[in-house]
Amino acid sequence: MNESIIYEISVKSFTKGLNNLVKILDKAAAHAESKKFSIDVLLNARLYPDQFHLIKQIQIACDTAKLGVARITGKDAPVHEDKETTLEELKSRLSSVIQYLETYKPEDFKDSSDRKVTQPRWEGKYLTGFEYLTQHALPNFYFHVTTAYAIFRHNGVDLGKRDYLGEMPYKT
Amino acid sequence: MNESIIYEISVKSFTKGLNNLVKILDKAAAHAESKKFSIDVLLNARLYPDQFHLIKQIQIACDTAKLGVARITGKDAPVHEDKETTLEELKSRLSSVIQYLETYKPEDFKDSSDRKVTQPRWEGKYLTGFEYLTQHALPNFYFHVTTAYAIFRHNGVDLGKRDYLGEMPYKT
Repeated sequence: MNESIIYEISVKSFTKGLNNLVKILDKAAAHAESKKFSIDVLLNARLYPDQFHLIKQIQIACDTAKLGVARITGKDAPVHEDKETTLEELKSRLSSVIQYLETYKPEDFKDSSDRKVTQPRWEGKYLTGFEYLTQHALPNFYFHVTTAYAIFRHNGVDLGKRDYLGEMPYKT
Repeated sequence: MNESIIYEISVKSFTKGLNNLVKILDKAAAHAESKKFSIDVLLNARLYPDQFHLIKQIQIACDTAKLGVARITGKDAPVHEDKETTLEELKSRLSSVIQYLETYKPEDFKDSSDRKVTQPRWEGKYLTGFEYLTQHALPNFYFHVTTAYAIFRHNGVDLGKRDYLGEMPYKT
């Protein structure tokens, strides 16, 4: 059952988080419209001068998700060129990554926990797939989703924890 | 191996995140000292008037960690009364939860994935331990750690992604 667990904590977590981001973007757009300012103001907002702006936060959340699953399964992820500047383009980017994640099946994660994951800047060093997923990809993904949320919150968009966590699969 | 995986993604993730928070607090304190203002200013900072201040973000991160592992293993977590107002008290709270997490062993998570987790406000509904951990506790934990980080960043503390992620267990 190992591969099912890894599938759940990667594909399922990323997919849910990206879907939540789509709804958060829609709320931000509705807020901007109600206050009669352009959503572009929020898309270019940041919490500090040398922090990435909102668009980049979402681009990195997307990349962390797609590369997270691709690297631990040994597959190639689709390339995105980070050219988004509008709300629609950002939502399209999110949608494209969500669709990519949907192509994965639990079987794809059969050897993922022990797979050696490396990157050029690691100079020959590696992490196991499990380490990469749990100590890098997952915390990094939630970091950028939360930072996007925080930028909107700081700018007055009415968001709550439920927007970030999404629906819970409660059972009776 | 199921219980080892659940142990790793709960106890290990929470412990690492809380240890990172201790170091982030120390950096914030050093920043305040170098700029000759009280760290209390940062501990009471928030990104928006109706958002929790930094102290509360850390208290919730602590609670999410301790209750996350307690609820999925069916144990009782220690009670903390949320009375912290100083840096030292906050660090002591973090230290207490880190020590509590250290009492857990992989065996404690044997039945955790399927355990029914419920709370009074869920009105009789439940989540499985695995759902609670991956869709509630983990994303919620990273949310509050990241929000604490964001509050400091917004106030000029020189933090980077490495402070948030902590050390990676690179191998050669």
